[in-house]
Amino acid sequence: MVSIDKIISLCKRRGFVFPSSEIYSGFGSCYDFGPLGVELKNNIKKIWWEEMVQKQENIVGLDASILMSPKIWQASGHLSAGFADELVECKKCHKRFKLDELKTQSSKLKTQNHNSKLKTDLIKNKQVLSSKFQVSSLCPECGGELSKPRKFNLMMKTFVGAVEDEAAATYLRAETCQGIYVNFLNVLNSARLKIPFGIAQIGKSFRNEITPGNFIFRVREFEQMEMQWFCHSTDDKSAQNKRETDTKTPDEWFEYWKEERMKWYIDLGIKKENLRLTEVSGKDMAHYAKRQIDIEYHFPFGWKEIEGIHNRGDWDLSNHSKHSGEELKYFDEVTGEKYIPHIIETSVGAERILLAFLCEAYTEVSGGREKSKSQNKKAKNKHEQEILLKLHPKLSPIKIAVLPLVKNKPELVKKAKEIYQLLKPHFNCQYDEAGSIGKRYRRQDEIGTIFCLTVDFESLEKNDLTIRDRDTMKQERIEIKNLLKILKEKLV
Amino acid sequence: MVSIDKIISLCKRRGFVFPSSEIYSGFGSCYDFGPLGVELKNNIKKIWWEEMVQKQENIVGLDASILMSPKIWQASGHLSAGFADELVECKKCHKRFKLDELKTQSSKLKTQNHNSKLKTDLIKNKQVLSSKFQVSSLCPECGGELSKPRKFNLMMKTFVGAVEDEAAATYLRAETCQGIYVNFLNVLNSARLKIPFGIAQIGKSFRNEITPGNFIFRVREFEQMEMQWFCHSTDDKSAQNKRETDTKTPDEWFEYWKEERMKWYIDLGIKKENLRLTEVSGKDMAHYAKRQIDIEYHFPFGWKEIEGIHNRGDWDLSNHSKHSGEELKYFDEVTGEKYIPHIIETSVGAERILLAFLCEAYTEVSGGREKSKSQNKKAKNKHEQEILLKLHPKLSPIKIAVLPLVKNKPELVKKAKEIYQLLKPHFNCQYDEAGSIGKRYRRQDEIGTIFCLTVDFESLEKNDLTIRDRDTMKQERIEIKNLLKILKEKLV
Repeated sequence: MVSIDKIISLCKRRGFVFPSSEIYSGFGSCYDFGPLGVELKNNIKKIWWEEMVQKQENIVGLDASILMSPKIWQASGHLSAGFADELVECKKCHKRFKLDELKTQSSKLKTQNHNSKLKTDLIKNKQVLSSKFQVSSLCPECGGELSKPRKFNLMMKTFVGAVEDEAAATYLRAETCQGIYVNFLNVLNSARLKIPFGIAQIGKSFRNEITPGNFIFRVREFEQMEMQWFCHSTDDKSAQNKRETDTKTPDEWFEYWKEERMKWYIDLGIKKENLRLTEVSGKDMAHYAKRQIDIEYHFPFGWKEIEGIHNRGDWDLSNHSKHSGEELKYFDEVTGEKYIPHIIETSVGAERILLAFLCEAYTEVSGGREKSKSQNKKAKNKHEQEILLKLHPKLSPIKIAVLPLVKNKPELVKKAKEIYQLLKPHFNCQYDEAGSIGKRYRRQDEIGTIFCLTVDFESLEKNDLTIRDRDTMKQERIEIKNLLKILKEKLV
Repeated sequence: MVSIDKIISLCKRRGFVFPSSEIYSGFGSCYDFGPLGVELKNNIKKIWWEEMVQKQENIVGLDASILMSPKIWQASGHLSAGFADELVECKKCHKRFKLDELKTQSSKLKTQNHNSKLKTDLIKNKQVLSSKFQVSSLCPECGGELSKPRKFNLMMKTFVGAVEDEAAATYLRAETCQGIYVNFLNVLNSARLKIPFGIAQIGKSFRNEITPGNFIFRVREFEQMEMQWFCHSTDDKSAQNKRETDTKTPDEWFEYWKEERMKWYIDLGIKKENLRLTEVSGKDMAHYAKRQIDIEYHFPFGWKEIEGIHNRGDWDLSNHSKHSGEELKYFDEVTGEKYIPHIIETSVGAERILLAFLCEAYTEVSGGREKSKSQNKKAKNKHEQEILLKLHPKLSPIKIAVLPLVKNKPELVKKAKEIYQLLKPHFNCQYDEAGSIGKRYRRQDEIGTIFCLTVDFESLEKNDLTIRDRDTMKQERIEIKNLLKILKEKLV
């Protein structure tokens, strides 16, 4: 498996991802997407939107603001559910514990013969972590080292209005979905939707992670792609069957969206064996969840969540009804029922899956891919590693590279540039004339370009060129008059 | 001209724009984009990106984070250039004045016979605005009422890291372009660009406007679409001519991009007479600008800036070089020159131009558009205003509506739904069966849908349908087997 360092290096060198504020020594585990990274990320967002909004009969989009009323975060439970407590965090498994809970567990450990190795460690490492409590410095879950206790607020505070004071304080949103819930009636009324229906959104969220890390996997500023599916509230199948449109129970919708989302990754080239579903239960679940399954990807640093499927029940709409005084209910014109719909959520982090796609696509070829074919390959290259980025064609940031065989023949350069101009309005293209043709193929292979078009001397006579396929390395000659049509067919 | 209230009403009713956090009485002049609004905004961003990145030979994209090192805002002048001073703002023209500058102007007015009406008002309305100074309460520019003086910081502060203290404080970016400047070397090296070249970016910025207003025109959270054009620094034409690639001076590039950007609006359907260029000079210019021209649109509330073209000179790269210690220079391999490039910037607010496109497209038709044709139109409808949203086809959120003539004929409904399913993967489509066909045409007209496809009884026999053009209202019958091909041609 590829090491994360190799991915980071490729990302920096080729312009996928740069550390933010790098000339000022970086900042807060933030990252910037370079020329190739922004295209890759835009492709991911576009494919998700096409799949989850455009092609769906009953899902519409939304784009709510990042800044919202702080009352939303009170109602949603984000302000009260442990976000402003004194917490310690395990540096290994990243689980957070309330200080007073730890104290209880710590004293339990002393009296029970729980795990002698862990117990010994705990007692050995016991230290004063706060003026109030004496607690262990080891994680009760995995035995990892714990951070010192601090006032943690996962939400980032800011001040909106003319003056910086608490009255004007709010938070950068910690999840995009709250913007969907508070617009439930607005969307329902303006888009005239019938249950079951979905509202989808792509946008930035912010969480003040105490221990960000693993490159762009755990970051403080990230882009979520979330779909909220509003369905009937009953799990009673016989009642469900009476309704005209919504014939699935929330549990069945949960299964449906879980399957759909798994399929999406596989369709985009993730191997089945690198994906798994993990049921999250008990107190490990998010505070709003009735049921939670994580889709995990096998990263170089282990199995990690890339998407969460949550049954949020009526948690959000009930709480917003209570706090706002608005009746956030759905009225079924056929059955006459009026009820708070239940919500099944699919929630993806764009940066996480971008990283997963890169890890999945990263391939090293020892000794050169076109070794046997290249006659004049220098001996020193034999042991070089060549990188091939096998991204799904829909994901590749650059679809086509146009290359004159050599750059010191004006006719070849002219013709290649004409072809580049012809294709550029239709596809993301690059023109490259620097270095040997082999070197240029390598350069395109490592950013996942699907086709290399080479204009050679024969092209001048026959008005054709060679098209080289990234994955098969097969080259064929095609006539330029058919080029646009052929490429459009290949790149649909 | 349409009133802004009518635009706001349409936006709310049909799901273009909702006030943010509305169930909690709104929040800080923030707005959310509904199902149609998000599609319109996405179309705007997509068209801008195609024009300013994909089709350009020498412009690449970037997506920098919103959270960046506070050192960036020190270097850029945003922290020092009056952003934390005691300011008063004119409630009419929104100009801000430093309190001590006003004091000077106020005493000048008393001694000069400047403008007798204004002078009388000023003296009449004089009041204590601060404990330190006695200044006029009227704007020295337009005579409008002034706000009370306050500590204003246009940038929104937040705290990144585990603890909320000043050491961890930074700001939400006030302009996206700084993320481009600090990545200058990263992009230059990874994308191997040659001057002149551009870096383009779309993303959220935040400004703590004291007096936001005019619906989504002046908001605190907004999306910028900015392109930074890096060119040679000399205005000496003869030196310029010696260089291989960059044969324009910064002034000439300024003119070039100004023209290109004007053209973009006209191509997207804005009438020439609703656009104008305003040269901004002296202390009205942004602190970084050597030259500044605003592209203004004639909104219902007056001529207002929608895009700024700025010659930022070497302001940004020089300051970041100084503050970071990195040498942010370009090396010209042909001439051997090493220099800090100058920057021409084109900077658009996505919300502002979305509003401009809506105002431009909004058309009212008295007495009904298809009056003469509809035989059974009810008398009461005669005096109704019909709304037609003449958006450019590339902008329209919904391209096609599929309508069965009546909903109580299962064969019609079935066929219409089949056509909807056929088209949906290719275009943004709506299916609508509720209400009379005339009412459904009106519903589509007011959201700018380009084509209405109606499945009628003849369709069942002939396997065809009628296609109605939004603007001409002409209807023709086309065969379903040719439908996809014809629509693809019409909607390119």
